[in-house]
Amino acid sequence: MTLYHKTVADDEEATARAVREAAAAAPLVILTGGLGPTDDDLTRQAFSRVLRSPLVLHAPSLARIRAFFRSLGREMPPANQVQALCPRGATVLVNFWGTAPGIRARVGRSTVYAFPGVPKEMAPMYERYVLPRLAHGTGRVILTETLHAFGAGESTVASALGELMRRDRNPIVGTTVSDSIVSVRIRSDFPEYEAARRALRATSRAVRRKLGGLVFGKNGQAIQEAVARQLKRSGLRLATAESCTGGLIARMVTDVAGSSGWFVGGWVAYANDLKRSELGVPATMIARKGAVSEEVARAMAEGALRKSGADIALATTGVAGPGGGSAAKPVGTVWIGLARKGKGSVAVRAECFRFPGTRAMVRDRAAKTALNMLRMDLIRLC
Amino acid sequence: MTLYHKTVADDEEATARAVREAAAAAPLVILTGGLGPTDDDLTRQAFSRVLRSPLVLHAPSLARIRAFFRSLGREMPPANQVQALCPRGATVLVNFWGTAPGIRARVGRSTVYAFPGVPKEMAPMYERYVLPRLAHGTGRVILTETLHAFGAGESTVASALGELMRRDRNPIVGTTVSDSIVSVRIRSDFPEYEAARRALRATSRAVRRKLGGLVFGKNGQAIQEAVARQLKRSGLRLATAESCTGGLIARMVTDVAGSSGWFVGGWVAYANDLKRSELGVPATMIARKGAVSEEVARAMAEGALRKSGADIALATTGVAGPGGGSAAKPVGTVWIGLARKGKGSVAVRAECFRFPGTRAMVRDRAAKTALNMLRMDLIRLC
Repeated sequence: MTLYHKTVADDEEATARAVREAAAAAPLVILTGGLGPTDDDLTRQAFSRVLRSPLVLHAPSLARIRAFFRSLGREMPPANQVQALCPRGATVLVNFWGTAPGIRARVGRSTVYAFPGVPKEMAPMYERYVLPRLAHGTGRVILTETLHAFGAGESTVASALGELMRRDRNPIVGTTVSDSIVSVRIRSDFPEYEAARRALRATSRAVRRKLGGLVFGKNGQAIQEAVARQLKRSGLRLATAESCTGGLIARMVTDVAGSSGWFVGGWVAYANDLKRSELGVPATMIARKGAVSEEVARAMAEGALRKSGADIALATTGVAGPGGGSAAKPVGTVWIGLARKGKGSVAVRAECFRFPGTRAMVRDRAAKTALNMLRMDLIRLC
Repeated sequence: MTLYHKTVADDEEATARAVREAAAAAPLVILTGGLGPTDDDLTRQAFSRVLRSPLVLHAPSLARIRAFFRSLGREMPPANQVQALCPRGATVLVNFWGTAPGIRARVGRSTVYAFPGVPKEMAPMYERYVLPRLAHGTGRVILTETLHAFGAGESTVASALGELMRRDRNPIVGTTVSDSIVSVRIRSDFPEYEAARRALRATSRAVRRKLGGLVFGKNGQAIQEAVARQLKRSGLRLATAESCTGGLIARMVTDVAGSSGWFVGGWVAYANDLKRSELGVPATMIARKGAVSEEVARAMAEGALRKSGADIALATTGVAGPGGGSAAKPVGTVWIGLARKGKGSVAVRAECFRFPGTRAMVRDRAAKTALNMLRMDLIRLC
């Protein structure tokens, strides 16, 4: 269990104090960051101060850092030499993912690790050097799973979960919300692996039963990954026609590796002229109904479907703000259109939403809601 | 100066202990998060425990929370009632931006604030309730500015800054890097405002002199905001044609409020068919040179310029990975095209890059590099 997480200023003595405090409180301490090449990277010095052991050059690390730069076709800048320093007597942990090696040493009865702060280096180093030592001999197994839901607020999700959220329950269930996605975290804490696994699974199933179609994924999966799985399975190909989301939906679906298998492409029809010339939305329709209207959302989705040759298309048109709102169409108003090829015909529908918050929040919610409409549509279809 | 930042588990006693520790260490403590409506929100209870004062219902807060939900056209879920509880004797701080009010109380010689963790609520509450009390009477003024640079690594930036980064300098200058943007943070610490301001300004100028065109903005500005300012000033209108960045560039530029003034729109030409049918890239060119080639990047930029009626167009085509790489075009290879209308002609050029890292990193770097090419082009133009 994580006792606490503490961030300190770029100050050698403050860092050293935090290391001593943590080592006194926990048998395992992980320091991240401050191993960079610049003068405000002070973790190495602070660690050396705590250990009362001078920094010495570790020649194999220096060779490795030089080789890393060479592989990028560059000379090692002189500043990076400092990354090969390590407190005498401490263990150097090879960094296969970047320049600064990790450092491990005992501080009193605690084992202290220092890793680079860059997530793509820190995460694999944690997995390689720390995780295997955690797995055995503690007499306690903690397994966790997080389910992600979209389409309802945190209070609604919590009240749907009811008794499952009792604080004295094991596995314990908690909710958090971030960017309109409600995450349900399940933590199973047992003396043995098998019991922890079984209980986790049963609770996970119970949560899914209570939340039904709201749950789209687990353990950090994004909503576009759920959509990707469905499209792959169904063999349908997607196109997008975005106005207020300005490419956000296309970016989200192309976040997924292999998206070229089911994503044809899309339009960012920001100017009305482009809605007309590229997607065939009649100028008279825009003039009469406004660009933010059911008719235009439908016409954009149909246009994208027709011009791309895809099987299903999403369209958005709305007022992301902060300007451009009116009494009839206030900031946050978004029409989302969905067109799908049927047998010899095209089914088109559009829904209107009003999202609260800033421009970024409106756009984020609009894109996720569009992808969720697609997800629900594909669930019904299959 | 921030002494430290500490994150604790959703546990009432651990939270209470962290509050006591912080109040003993600093005259001002800010708690964030854990004021939500669910059972794992425990800051209120922990605060009450530290104060040895029971939680009591604060009727005006309850009325305000009900009204907040009503303004969204919804009933207040019963769970949210708990957000109107406050330790007896503590001060309730009205939350104009969400549901949970803040709480202020003395703990020993320290003033402790509890705010919601949602940034859009926390930030304005900090500004309203804490900042005015910090501004006077300390005998010390700290001003900061952060300059953002793109196009060189952290070591290169640091060595260009040279003496400016000495740790005994005031203002002190430090660098951090995040998603390939190097940020240079300047911190000016003087007894008086005017001296702090003058020194900050002088150091900021010195940093800009050393880094030249690498600096695109300051204090959290994004590269697309720099581009937006230039386009607005020059009166030029932009279009995009994206393959490997899949809508990311369009999303970035439409992040900026008012982008409809200078962004016409764009294409996400993911499938080769769409590159051909929508942007007029010859099928024979794709067959002969490959979709990831100088010729296709140039043709995409030209096509976007022609079909959109914009003055300047960006195009990307590359191998974002993890699959699709080859010996000649490994993962990370990206061609970026730029087309600009001149007097009676169109100037087109393309550059090839090879970005390291994951799919997300390659896409992020490609989009920022494209926007930076545009920025440098517009600097030369004006």
